[in-house]
Amino acid sequence: MQIDTLEPIPSTLQPHSLVASDRVEGTPVRRPDGSKAGTIERLMIDKLSGNVAYAVLSFGGFLGIGQKHLPIPWARLKYDRTLGAYQLDLTEEELNRAPSFVVDKDFDWGDRSREIQIHDFYRVRPYWGAY
Amino acid sequence: MQIDTLEPIPSTLQPHSLVASDRVEGTPVRRPDGSKAGTIERLMIDKLSGNVAYAVLSFGGFLGIGQKHLPIPWARLKYDRTLGAYQLDLTEEELNRAPSFVVDKDFDWGDRSREIQIHDFYRVRPYWGAY
Repeated sequence: MQIDTLEPIPSTLQPHSLVASDRVEGTPVRRPDGSKAGTIERLMIDKLSGNVAYAVLSFGGFLGIGQKHLPIPWARLKYDRTLGAYQLDLTEEELNRAPSFVVDKDFDWGDRSREIQIHDFYRVRPYWGAY
Repeated sequence: MQIDTLEPIPSTLQPHSLVASDRVEGTPVRRPDGSKAGTIERLMIDKLSGNVAYAVLSFGGFLGIGQKHLPIPWARLKYDRTLGAYQLDLTEEELNRAPSFVVDKDFDWGDRSREIQIHDFYRVRPYWGAY
């Protein structure tokens, strides 16, 4: 559970819309049925625009072996305050065929054609604008 | 020095424009003369838009006492590959009167009027659009 659920928000303030990067890192991601899909490892930030490009989800494997990293466009993660987790509305089958890369092998972040595949898969507008 | 300076970038790829949040955290911030102003503690992300709102710079103090946190709009930090640090083009006097908050006391992130002060001080367009 996140800290901000423990303290009432003063009614004079607007809803708090900022979240710290080091609080996102390590947050669980759950399936619609509540089971844990994995954990957010880090955010990938577009240096030029200052947009969050992806949240990197560590997924699958056992004791760290065979684990995959999935770059998920930020717009496809919804934070659920009650669960204290992000919710991803993908089926297990979709999660298994989602674009991923092997941990400790660098995802080729400079390859725009792979990035287009990712955004096609998740059906969201890319962080760099239209294509 | 950052890892990506150790490996040549394949010429077939565009310049790499993404950076990991956990790599930004802990990166030094240096003044134009090269002296260290402080360290990036974390990024503050606008949940709705997915924009980086601020990089939080820990600044001043001695052995952790009297240290201040400065929320700096992302657009005002330039990464210098040679220095392996972010560069902030503020004088010491400006740095001392920059909007800051005391460590361990929550900055009131929900207060838009304070956020307007911050963006006025740094003379950058706010992450939420015009005001």
